Amino acid sequence: MDVGAKEERDQVWWGHRAWSLLSAVRTRAPLVQCITNLVSMDIAANMLLAAGASPAMVHSLREVPDFTPRCDSVYVNVGTLSEDWLPSMRTAASAGRPWVLDPVAAAASGFRMEACLELLSLFPAVVRGNASEILALASRSAAASSNFKGVDSSHGSVDAIEAAKALALSNSAVVAVSGAVDFITDGKQVVGVSNGVPMMQKITATGCAVTALISAFVAMEPSDAVVAAACALAIFGLAGEIGMESAKGPASLRMHLIDALYCLDEETVTSRVRISLRP
Amino acid sequence: MDVGAKEERDQVWWGHRAWSLLSAVRTRAPLVQCITNLVSMDIAANMLLAAGASPAMVHSLREVPDFTPRCDSVYVNVGTLSEDWLPSMRTAASAGRPWVLDPVAAAASGFRMEACLELLSLFPAVVRGNASEILALASRSAAASSNFKGVDSSHGSVDAIEAAKALALSNSAVVAVSGAVDFITDGKQVVGVSNGVPMMQKITATGCAVTALISAFVAMEPSDAVVAAACALAIFGLAGEIGMESAKGPASLRMHLIDALYCLDEETVTSRVRISLRP
Amino acid sequence: MDVGAKEERDQVWWGHRAWSLLSAVRTRAPLVQCITNLVSMDIAANMLLAAGASPAMVHSLREVPDFTPRCDSVYVNVGTLSEDWLPSMRTAASAGRPWVLDPVAAAASGFRMEACLELLSLFPAVVRGNASEILALASRSAAASSNFKGVDSSHGSVDAIEAAKALALSNSAVVAVSGAVDFITDGKQVVGVSNGVPMMQKITATGCAVTALISAFVAMEPSDAVVAAACALAIFGLAGEIGMESAKGPASLRMHLIDALYCLDEETVTSRVRISLRP
Repeated sequence: MDVGAKEERDQVWWGHRAWSLLSAVRTRAPLVQCITNLVSMDIAANMLLAAGASPAMVHSLREVPDFTPRCDSVYVNVGTLSEDWLPSMRTAASAGRPWVLDPVAAAASGFRMEACLELLSLFPAVVRGNASEILALASRSAAASSNFKGVDSSHGSVDAIEAAKALALSNSAVVAVSGAVDFITDGKQVVGVSNGVPMMQKITATGCAVTALISAFVAMEPSDAVVAAACALAIFGLAGEIGMESAKGPASLRMHLIDALYCLDEETVTSRVRISLRP
Repeated sequence: MDVGAKEERDQVWWGHRAWSLLSAVRTRAPLVQCITNLVSMDIAANMLLAAGASPAMVHSLREVPDFTPRCDSVYVNVGTLSEDWLPSMRTAASAGRPWVLDPVAAAASGFRMEACLELLSLFPAVVRGNASEILALASRSAAASSNFKGVDSSHGSVDAIEAAKALALSNSAVVAVSGAVDFITDGKQVVGVSNGVPMMQKITATGCAVTALISAFVAMEPSDAVVAAACALAIFGLAGEIGMESAKGPASLRMHLIDALYCLDEETVTSRVRISLRP
Repeated sequence: MDVGAKEERDQVWWGHRAWSLLSAVRTRAPLVQCITNLVSMDIAANMLLAAGASPAMVHSLREVPDFTPRCDSVYVNVGTLSEDWLPSMRTAASAGRPWVLDPVAAAASGFRMEACLELLSLFPAVVRGNASEILALASRSAAASSNFKGVDSSHGSVDAIEAAKALALSNSAVVAVSGAVDFITDGKQVVGVSNGVPMMQKITATGCAVTALISAFVAMEPSDAVVAAACALAIFGLAGEIGMESAKGPASLRMHLIDALYCLDEETVTSRVRISLRP
């Protein structure tokens, strides 16, 4: 079989996987506990609902023992980290459910870096960050880089592939690096996702929202988090592409993206997701 | 008079009540203190503003003694309950203003159930929840049901009517159960509201937002909380119906719903609210 | 030169200043630390992103020493003040970066008034509030006025000009009063901004969002905070005017305003900002 035919066959396979996982989310409506930052709560909850999942923003340590075991997955995001939320994150992450970590701005402070490294040690199924976040985590360093941009990345995703692989291997986790192309790796294979549009970076908390979506997909496919993360990133990027067709700026893109996610059908998903195994 | 004529007369009466209460909110702009969950703050505040009320998200215990007495009503919502917010909820609920309780996901944990039951004992004018929440409160139980769905209901509203009546009688409060049809009861009479569209459940915190609206309406009609709650639910559902005419998914529905609420006129309200006394 | 010609020349000067500052924000993407209220986080972050800045909602005291010195400016907003956030506000405000204060509902409680007065003493570059807030701060009083409206103003901006001047002089800060016309003063000169539309008041946290924008502009022009604040208020109001052309209510206005801010071009800014020095 020639290369073109193999690529086409793989494309068909990924398209069906993505559709199958989205359909599972819509049918089974996984309950996803979110301990996320204060900025992203609205968009993350709306994104999960539009995808068919059932979000629950529950962050009190008093509720974790009763609530977390009933969830299908857990999403932890350190975007507006404070000391009083950290114990809940730790406890929910340790509750035996598949869980996903978003290390927002990991290098923002020594406190945040330590928290992220501790959470990393609690066996997340997936860690999803931008290139700067993954590079910082891999180097275990909050040292100020000359081009530190807070929650925004100052590196391209391709620059973080090796760091992502190392981080994945040392933590037995799948690591996803978002960017113009998203890379997802378990430390050995690397999968690339090319869906998405640049303007999505001009909407606050889109990174947080896609990590929420990954959490829902991981609940449907806990045994293959590479596939779950890649498909969630592709579905989200595809919704952004469709949203962009009607958008006049970042605020209308936000709306159209969520609407598009809600309306995605099999034909669109199977023909338009762009996922491929990297050599 | 035949039944059809009586129904028509009742319909006219409710239409005028709903319009009169909405007009009162627009004219008098009641100050509504909201101690609500972190997910719903944006939509609850925007909904109150669109209705003509003046929302104030004030949750510090240090502010309640000065601030709450100046408010026209108080809205308490346990959606993202934590121990440090509970004393403010308790104190604001006890400040002598008419107040409304949203027991979001009451069965999520023993901690939350206890908090809800304690708040219930502080004489809310109205308690508004979905069927699962009202059933859980009535049975005073956070025990995991096999089909627990977090903040989403796993029961139809009609299944919770008897529980709502019992809860209303034992707490001297009006209880509203949201669903395909909303039911509002003081324990004796039951009023049904048929406005609304299913997609509203795909927008996060619509339940929280309508309870905020009920709080504003209760401020205008503290002596008849059944009427206030029924009219608020109908107005909100009607705004959803109008929004749905232009919506392409849950995110555009959210926008159009708020715009529609802001633009509602007398002709639309009086001809389209669907409220009726149940036999 | 006659008066008309002078006005026209000034108009051209302001138009170029506004465009130049917006361009600087877009090019340099200042990192703005926001310690803001829970209601405004989404809109403030999206507004800063649409303007080209890089928002970071970081509020933990543990992060301030590492994070704040790397920021280009700091934004502090007391809208949902609580005791545990106040130390971070104080410390971030004292970190040597230009910073901006939004004293939301300063008169809501004695606790809030004291906090605002303490923050005021920490040398903010700009304080931006509505007329009621500025009047309350200038009189150092949280005493309940008969027409207290929570976060909404019960006074016109023109009524607060003298209070703003006094407040500016006693705190060596620029004070901006929002309203139908915005007034900005350093205690001596007063600049007026006439951009904006009334419906912006029906969107929650627009005041908070424009103060966030002022923070980004101040980062670009720390040595002339009157110009920075006036230009940010004009740009924001202009985006509202353009958004209003497509809006059908407050929720669509919110979307179109953010889109318009993102899309503003030189021709539009220079021809439509309405800033003038008051006699």
